[in-house]
Amino acid sequence: VHSVLAIDIGGTKLAAAVVREDGVVVTRGRVPTQPEKGPAAALERLLGLCRQLIGEAGLTVDALDGVGVASAGPLDARRGVLLSPPNLVGWSEFPLVFTLEEGLGRSVRFENDASAAALAEHRFGAGRGLDHLVYFTLSTGIGGGVILDGRLYRGATGNAAELGHLQLSYDGWPCPCGGRGCLEAFASGSAIARRAREKTGRSTLTTPDVVEAVRAKEPWAVALWDETMEVLGAGIASTINAFNPQRIILGGGVTAAGELLFEPLRRIARGRAMPALAKGVDVMPAQLGDDVGVLGAAASALF
Amino acid sequence: VHSVLAIDIGGTKLAAAVVREDGVVVTRGRVPTQPEKGPAAALERLLGLCRQLIGEAGLTVDALDGVGVASAGPLDARRGVLLSPPNLVGWSEFPLVFTLEEGLGRSVRFENDASAAALAEHRFGAGRGLDHLVYFTLSTGIGGGVILDGRLYRGATGNAAELGHLQLSYDGWPCPCGGRGCLEAFASGSAIARRAREKTGRSTLTTPDVVEAVRAKEPWAVALWDETMEVLGAGIASTINAFNPQRIILGGGVTAAGELLFEPLRRIARGRAMPALAKGVDVMPAQLGDDVGVLGAAASALF
Repeated sequence: VHSVLAIDIGGTKLAAAVVREDGVVVTRGRVPTQPEKGPAAALERLLGLCRQLIGEAGLTVDALDGVGVASAGPLDARRGVLLSPPNLVGWSEFPLVFTLEEGLGRSVRFENDASAAALAEHRFGAGRGLDHLVYFTLSTGIGGGVILDGRLYRGATGNAAELGHLQLSYDGWPCPCGGRGCLEAFASGSAIARRAREKTGRSTLTTPDVVEAVRAKEPWAVALWDETMEVLGAGIASTINAFNPQRIILGGGVTAAGELLFEPLRRIARGRAMPALAKGVDVMPAQLGDDVGVLGAAASALF
Repeated sequence: VHSVLAIDIGGTKLAAAVVREDGVVVTRGRVPTQPEKGPAAALERLLGLCRQLIGEAGLTVDALDGVGVASAGPLDARRGVLLSPPNLVGWSEFPLVFTLEEGLGRSVRFENDASAAALAEHRFGAGRGLDHLVYFTLSTGIGGGVILDGRLYRGATGNAAELGHLQLSYDGWPCPCGGRGCLEAFASGSAIARRAREKTGRSTLTTPDVVEAVRAKEPWAVALWDETMEVLGAGIASTINAFNPQRIILGGGVTAAGELLFEPLRRIARGRAMPALAKGVDVMPAQLGDDVGVLGAAASALF
């Protein structure tokens, strides 16, 4: 059985795991990122964790069949560096891949985390057996990944499928990326909570609070949720028209809202996409849950 | 030298050509479509034209290295039929590919015309040597085609890259496709002319008239053009974020506006796309002009 080392780089934690080719996680662990202390210190902690996990799995670095690293983008996959990562201020242009390769003595596959998650859902989750998938992660931000002709599509610099930056309102809200009307700046978890706080003046509201208020049919929450679904549905419809997929898969914390999210999104996305392309396309929940980070990194090394 | 038969099916004319693998058109011709007389009569005329052109090229059907057919979508490439084509009313579900294959005694490659055009620009035109391209045709309607990892991406049913139906205004103008805020319903040649007529009350205005009025700095025309460029630029930025291409290529009649179109689109698209993805992406004119129809059909048979 092939096994790989999988590393998931986030703004809060650095997770690692030894994962088998069938998607079974053999050993796993995490250390805090502490991004303010800089990338060098963080990578030292991460490399220590990796060596420990490889040992716990009864393996050596040389016995691994690959190493995969996933991180929030944007990144330059060819040079192995992050480009102005919003959650990892100060890590821009740090030689992330080089440092890991030096530390491990192995080459490393570097992937945008949402693309890696799409690959994991394709191999181990809600997209098994399909050739054409669009995956969205609806979380603090909104990321995307696409499987086209059975393979992960990475783009010219490894940044394909930044679906959180589809622009759904050409003259609308500004986005920190420089665009306007970006999906992420309206419908991500943090954007939903921010819009709810602005609307109600209640400064402690979270996205789960909003979902609870929608279930309780509070009018402000229902109106905010309906408009959020319309924007997300228009974004999904645009990806149906652009990628002509067989299935849309949604993961990330916001999908905890369940059918309150999936029912309107299915209806709106199918209604807004071109009929010939919408036919037969389902909008389904991701299946890998919290494991998607390390499974994505593993899948990027395996496939 | 390999040669193929190329067929371009449009609402006004049916064009055909014998094309060499290097993109040289050996013989060409056209017959009127007369869509109101139905597909069977049109295909009979088309098959007569094809036999004549093959003869003029000094070839036989059996000596050809393939047959490619391009048509405006949406279509079902697997079944070889058009699906509710707006310019070919009554042709829906007609066994187009089957009839051609029966008539020629050869198998036929069936392609969306904008995807075929993208392939032609990739092999013979403005995209030579690149692996990641987004092509837009800005014409009566707006079509798209994408070259990803060096290959044409067709999607699950052969309808990928319906880029005229990216939705740039989630609560905006309705589109005949059923969506709202679609690029095509605002920025295609016919939409520009329609908006200009509505704005001025001058019922004979065409898109070239609008372009002339913009050059003459007529305020109504400048305002209309500026807003059109903002919507098109947002659409192009969305495709940069979605596909992470190396180049954007624009073809079709509206590009006759030249730098009046390309200068603002370059500026707006680069300004609105994520900086890491916008870097190095140019927005360039297509190079194949009126030959793109048959060259696209030829390219789909050749590559």
